[in-house]
Amino acid sequence: RAGLRPLSTDLSVAKLGESDVHVRMLAAPINPADINMIQGTYAILSELPAVGGNEGVGQVVEVGSRVTSVKPGDWVVPADTGLGTWRTEAVFPEETLLQVPSDIPLLCAATLSVNPCTAYRMLADFETLRPGDSVIQNGANSGVGQAVIQIAKASGIRTINVVRDRPDLPKLVERLMSLGADHVITEEMLRKPDMKDLFKSIPKPRLALNCVGGKSTTEMLRHLQPKGTVVTYGGMAKQPVMVPVSAFIFKDVKLRGFWMTQWKKDQMHSKLSLCELVRKGQLTAPACTEVPLEDYRTALEASIKPFTSSKQILVL
Amino acid sequence: RAGLRPLSTDLSVAKLGESDVHVRMLAAPINPADINMIQGTYAILSELPAVGGNEGVGQVVEVGSRVTSVKPGDWVVPADTGLGTWRTEAVFPEETLLQVPSDIPLLCAATLSVNPCTAYRMLADFETLRPGDSVIQNGANSGVGQAVIQIAKASGIRTINVVRDRPDLPKLVERLMSLGADHVITEEMLRKPDMKDLFKSIPKPRLALNCVGGKSTTEMLRHLQPKGTVVTYGGMAKQPVMVPVSAFIFKDVKLRGFWMTQWKKDQMHSKLSLCELVRKGQLTAPACTEVPLEDYRTALEASIKPFTSSKQILVL
Repeated sequence: RAGLRPLSTDLSVAKLGESDVHVRMLAAPINPADINMIQGTYAILSELPAVGGNEGVGQVVEVGSRVTSVKPGDWVVPADTGLGTWRTEAVFPEETLLQVPSDIPLLCAATLSVNPCTAYRMLADFETLRPGDSVIQNGANSGVGQAVIQIAKASGIRTINVVRDRPDLPKLVERLMSLGADHVITEEMLRKPDMKDLFKSIPKPRLALNCVGGKSTTEMLRHLQPKGTVVTYGGMAKQPVMVPVSAFIFKDVKLRGFWMTQWKKDQMHSKLSLCELVRKGQLTAPACTEVPLEDYRTALEASIKPFTSSKQILVL
Repeated sequence: RAGLRPLSTDLSVAKLGESDVHVRMLAAPINPADINMIQGTYAILSELPAVGGNEGVGQVVEVGSRVTSVKPGDWVVPADTGLGTWRTEAVFPEETLLQVPSDIPLLCAATLSVNPCTAYRMLADFETLRPGDSVIQNGANSGVGQAVIQIAKASGIRTINVVRDRPDLPKLVERLMSLGADHVITEEMLRKPDMKDLFKSIPKPRLALNCVGGKSTTEMLRHLQPKGTVVTYGGMAKQPVMVPVSAFIFKDVKLRGFWMTQWKKDQMHSKLSLCELVRKGQLTAPACTEVPLEDYRTALEASIKPFTSSKQILVL
């Protein structure tokens, strides 16, 4: 927040209470929302001083006498936002942790509870999609975007993936195609009349996933089926979502939002079926750059650079 | 549409077929959507030449031998958009008409099937409102707006009514209050911090009804309860609806649209319960100016003037 600079510091590890779990952190990503929390622009702000990071995986070292849900050696992830995962070890109350299988790759476990859960819920909760149906999304190379591609692929749902034009576009297209993307197009292509040709081979989407805002959303909306839904889960362009009145009245489109943090407060089921996809090789971690904790400044800087297609992940 | 001018002309009345109904029109309003159809900006355009008008009430003169749903003397209204009600008489297929009770005032019957039905459905279909709950709407002096005020009042739902500032504001406020409005405020007041005081005596709305678009919608949205719904049914400002990304993500607001024409294609129930409200004196026709058919040009011109609070209704 204004006037504050993140720093690396030594904190003492709290004494283990009877309902506490001593965790050694293994890996923790830097997500856009973590940066927004530091900038003070997020809807939830931790009391300062605070430890950054809302996601990650740790291994249980020791448990208090009344702890029943986890045992030493288990892998755990945060049950909720605000745990502060960018640290090497800590003592957490049992209820702030959820056990995850330890037979999935470390980077998958570290990045499972925010981006893939968001992707999974957005694909499941707003429209009933069947194999052969299509989904359109912008910011398709984001962590969520990559998970959408893979989860949709595993369900037989086709994806139209919108990305910004960039110098190494063919490389990005190739990477997203290798994850299972059906179409990868730029924002510019999205505006062109040739889009009609694309819809000769794929049905118009009933669901659009938006993490950009501004014109990008309006353009995606134009290709949506009547009665389709746009779900907004981010606003990278820092511009409001703009919707022509006619889309509401004559096309009956629905605009909704999704926030994983709020969803988690209600329930927490999707992670287990995601672990199934990981085990089957249908869901991998997003492209990650592993960074040792001491190089956290480099990682934070890299995480806010434009066109970053790789998630910075602190290895602890 | 471009290059076309509406004109008054004599049409021959078609021969009565066995499934037809000969109707003498009694009254037909000029609604904003009728003007849009003439301008060519509506989603449904009649084949030209066409008779204008989509709403109105007529009296059955004669019926074909196979007609069962209506008999001579009955009052009828169009079942669907596009009937062409701005005429003195016509022969219509039976299925294009719906019978309405003839014991309600003529102007109510003539204006029942578009505006009050829109108001009724929007109050019923998007949020479950209970007595004591509140609704906010802009364009509150429109035909729909006036019906919203009265139907909400009859259901114990409180209304916050937004209108544009104008020379005769106190008169408009008084008229809307007399219909049952709880609060009438201008767009300017909506933006001011004093709105907080208003919400000391009335709960924040869970439903916002929008027929304006642009900034007006964004301002209403700010006062909506979390998880509330904005329903767009018009766009008088000719500007898109703009929604901050944070409203979708952190406030979980839903944006929807409503179009009576589409709804009618699916089902048609609400008119009967509206007749009940009319009989009980809880729903009156909007402020109307009765105009003889030969003065249709004056009526059309009056209907597109700014700040027109009176619906032009052709008396046939």
